[in-house]
Amino acid sequence: MTTAGTHETEILSDPDVPLVRITREFDAPPEKVFRAHTDPDLLVRWLGPRGVEMRIDSFDCRTGGSYRYVHSADGEEYGFRGSFHEVRPAELIVQTFTFEGMPDGVALERLVLEDLGGGRTRLTATSLVDSFEGRDGFVASGMEVGVIEGYQRLDAILAT
Amino acid sequence: MTTAGTHETEILSDPDVPLVRITREFDAPPEKVFRAHTDPDLLVRWLGPRGVEMRIDSFDCRTGGSYRYVHSADGEEYGFRGSFHEVRPAELIVQTFTFEGMPDGVALERLVLEDLGGGRTRLTATSLVDSFEGRDGFVASGMEVGVIEGYQRLDAILAT
Repeated sequence: MTTAGTHETEILSDPDVPLVRITREFDAPPEKVFRAHTDPDLLVRWLGPRGVEMRIDSFDCRTGGSYRYVHSADGEEYGFRGSFHEVRPAELIVQTFTFEGMPDGVALERLVLEDLGGGRTRLTATSLVDSFEGRDGFVASGMEVGVIEGYQRLDAILAT
Repeated sequence: MTTAGTHETEILSDPDVPLVRITREFDAPPEKVFRAHTDPDLLVRWLGPRGVEMRIDSFDCRTGGSYRYVHSADGEEYGFRGSFHEVRPAELIVQTFTFEGMPDGVALERLVLEDLGGGRTRLTATSLVDSFEGRDGFVASGMEVGVIEGYQRLDAILAT
């Protein structure tokens, strides 16, 4: 865990379109960062804030596949689901995303991994919705805690 | 075909977000309009402009499914693919959409069917992308011809 927490997570709300852009570097090559996003046994160990339990119902991470998982904390359960539009190993994941508590809200998400050389990767994750109100509500909901803590947990997994 | 061509197709570019909204009424109940969108044997008879041949490679129209089809005209082939985020019979289809000629372009599409009573339906179809340039290029590409002619062909199918 020598490098855990050494990288800043940048979370920007786009001024022109209802999109959030997250940028983060990792001290691991793209193949390893990709695997931590696509292997359910690794994903449950880092996705979301500390103290949240994650259970995966299904996770078919390939072009045309779909997923559903549940976060639980303090006796409450929160379901999330979507489909994988395109998956390119070590490069790209394009997926849809819905929080089941707001079943009519759908985000189009794009994860891009760039090889920075020297065993480092830049991750850029965008989330596009159809209104600024929806985007701003998502950002104001405290999502940044989950994102930042999740990536710190991911740092620790990548360091092993 | 008594009613074919009697309804206007409204195609609006949203001023605030990079989205196109298409609205059209049909003289058929939602169940019938929905079936024409989800039954491959019906879909190939109307989707797209006149004079285009449509071949479906796969079409698994259910929540979590995916699709691919090819339009051909004048010896050229155009592939389209995506996944179905959510399908609610006679009500809603949320899907992703990519024209394979521009493989990094992905639209999030939402089809809503409203029962107007008296065997009539209002269809609202939105297409959201991540830039105004992309949206305006899509609208300027002549897509409205395919949409308008496609719905005229759909009118004819619904009238039988």
